[in-house]
Amino acid sequence: MKFNNRNVHLGMNVRLGNNVRIGDNTTIYDNVAIGDNTIIANDCVIGEPSWEYYRHGENYTQPETVIGASALIRSHTILYAGSSFGENFTTGHRVTIRENCRFGRDCQVGTLTNIQGDVTFGDYCKMHSNVLIAEFSTIGNHVFIYPFTVFTNDTHPPSNHYKGPTIGDYSVITVHCIILPAVKIGTHCLVGANSVVNKDLPDFSFAVGSPAKIMRDVRELGGGGLYPWVYNFERGMPWQGIGFDVWSQQQ
Amino acid sequence: MKFNNRNVHLGMNVRLGNNVRIGDNTTIYDNVAIGDNTIIANDCVIGEPSWEYYRHGENYTQPETVIGASALIRSHTILYAGSSFGENFTTGHRVTIRENCRFGRDCQVGTLTNIQGDVTFGDYCKMHSNVLIAEFSTIGNHVFIYPFTVFTNDTHPPSNHYKGPTIGDYSVITVHCIILPAVKIGTHCLVGANSVVNKDLPDFSFAVGSPAKIMRDVRELGGGGLYPWVYNFERGMPWQGIGFDVWSQQQ
Amino acid sequence: MKFNNRNVHLGMNVRLGNNVRIGDNTTIYDNVAIGDNTIIANDCVIGEPSWEYYRHGENYTQPETVIGASALIRSHTILYAGSSFGENFTTGHRVTIRENCRFGRDCQVGTLTNIQGDVTFGDYCKMHSNVLIAEFSTIGNHVFIYPFTVFTNDTHPPSNHYKGPTIGDYSVITVHCIILPAVKIGTHCLVGANSVVNKDLPDFSFAVGSPAKIMRDVRELGGGGLYPWVYNFERGMPWQGIGFDVWSQQQ
Repeated sequence: MKFNNRNVHLGMNVRLGNNVRIGDNTTIYDNVAIGDNTIIANDCVIGEPSWEYYRHGENYTQPETVIGASALIRSHTILYAGSSFGENFTTGHRVTIRENCRFGRDCQVGTLTNIQGDVTFGDYCKMHSNVLIAEFSTIGNHVFIYPFTVFTNDTHPPSNHYKGPTIGDYSVITVHCIILPAVKIGTHCLVGANSVVNKDLPDFSFAVGSPAKIMRDVRELGGGGLYPWVYNFERGMPWQGIGFDVWSQQQ
Repeated sequence: MKFNNRNVHLGMNVRLGNNVRIGDNTTIYDNVAIGDNTIIANDCVIGEPSWEYYRHGENYTQPETVIGASALIRSHTILYAGSSFGENFTTGHRVTIRENCRFGRDCQVGTLTNIQGDVTFGDYCKMHSNVLIAEFSTIGNHVFIYPFTVFTNDTHPPSNHYKGPTIGDYSVITVHCIILPAVKIGTHCLVGANSVVNKDLPDFSFAVGSPAKIMRDVRELGGGGLYPWVYNFERGMPWQGIGFDVWSQQQ
Repeated sequence: MKFNNRNVHLGMNVRLGNNVRIGDNTTIYDNVAIGDNTIIANDCVIGEPSWEYYRHGENYTQPETVIGASALIRSHTILYAGSSFGENFTTGHRVTIRENCRFGRDCQVGTLTNIQGDVTFGDYCKMHSNVLIAEFSTIGNHVFIYPFTVFTNDTHPPSNHYKGPTIGDYSVITVHCIILPAVKIGTHCLVGANSVVNKDLPDFSFAVGSPAKIMRDVRELGGGGLYPWVYNFERGMPWQGIGFDVWSQQQ
């Protein structure tokens, strides 16, 4: 239904792997490389140019965009030029990802999520719908971020001094949270709903509140056994079928 | 202006009622039924297939999508296949509604609102802009939900155990609220701004806070007479012109 | 890359200034005036008609839309008919701005921001991404509003009595705030993250919390010197290069 080559336009130097499918009404601008078996659905814009394109016109140089193998980019997604996406990258609808972002493998970005430029993600990160990640954020591996959570980067808005948050491996930031600029959250943390994190959190923190307070160690939640989640959840994770401990020892 | 049959594509087995209008740049995929006098504006996608379409290719079976009579679907809306929408259904722009949702009659869904799969709505529900409803939520009749409110369904994220909230008839959830998984909110409730509802609320509760506390009976708010709102507001409601009590007795 | 005249459609009485560029897949409806050197990028809808268009059909009269000189409207933006935008107006992607809005010069509206009808903005206002401004709001000059902040206008939802907030010149509303209906915020105020402002704020207030409390004068923050921001930040402001005091004296 989606792949009829209707109103599809490819720019110059677009390199498609084997078995790539491009949906109707999708535009891929110049200098984009797409891996084997990747699907770009309908009404997408890939290789969106940055501000310099409008300012400098024909002197603008389009940076390379690289989408790995077996990706699924759902409709109405805008991926800026100059970002790279590891294999099995998946998006919902109407995702916007700006320039100079780096995604590891098996990352997911939900519908309407808006990722600004110069953000680095590790592997197996899952952003749910309606997340907003500020420029210069750094996100580890196996991080989950839930809806309406915003990462900020401007300590005294408006200013010119941007420092994004840093999130450690296996941490979970739940719905409607605010991570303030330059905050470092450790590994295996859990941030409860509607929290404002204004201080660094050590590994295994469960924090909640506005401003967030460390309530306990995540390993004590619910009498123990609920967290770290890595022992309870393996769908889409590299330890699926073998368990986290076996997988960890293999790394 | 909008209905020039430019870049409009209809799939197989699309059944249009009398006087249906389809806007430019809109795609309707297979197996969609649209009632009389319905308007699908420009740049919409109706019958968006689920994940199985990409995975199973030609073996994919598209479920039926049913849009009732006199609906108005504004531009850039995506309605997944397998959902049904009662008569007079109205959307703003850029609405996303996933599979297996059921909407009663006279429901409205505002701009950018994102409704995930397997959600049931009664009649005359009004979602404002930028609402996010999680899978497996159940929403009664005459329910109002305001911007940036999110319904959640995962008690210990990330997990595989999803239970959506349930909202009773005539309840109002205001802006920036979080309804936690499996919470049941009664009828005629009012949840104040920026609240996190983590426990069930009995009928007629006014609750606010993070976590939300029941502050009083809605019938006592403002000295009485403000709530239940059904006595003060009738625009678009079935008791318009006759009053809530008369209408109720007719039911 | 963007300006190939593919699937571009202009309605009746569309008046383009000199050197206007219109992106592919963009539609401009009737009665729109666009100033010199303005760029409307791809996949935009300009002059979106209001509800009366669907109801009254051929008897509908499209109000005029005016976009000033040197504007940059990024992709997938919807601007309703009947609004006006001063020179150097800039949007991110997927912005929605409804009817009867008035923007002064040098305003910016970020990606996914949703501005409802009958809102007035002064000059040099900057809305970041994912902001929601309710109908009948009034916003001064040099105002900054950050993501997931919502202005509301319905005191007893649902009602028919709408009164939007009023924001004074040079004020900053940070992330995830709620401004309640009819609230008046003075000049040079700063509202901290995750606040619910339910009372008027005098000039130079720093307020935070839910409900927001006035914590101190902004001139005392950080030991002084951080706020008013006008002495520390001039990018894109009319006092760039000369300083706020010199500029102020010239006014």
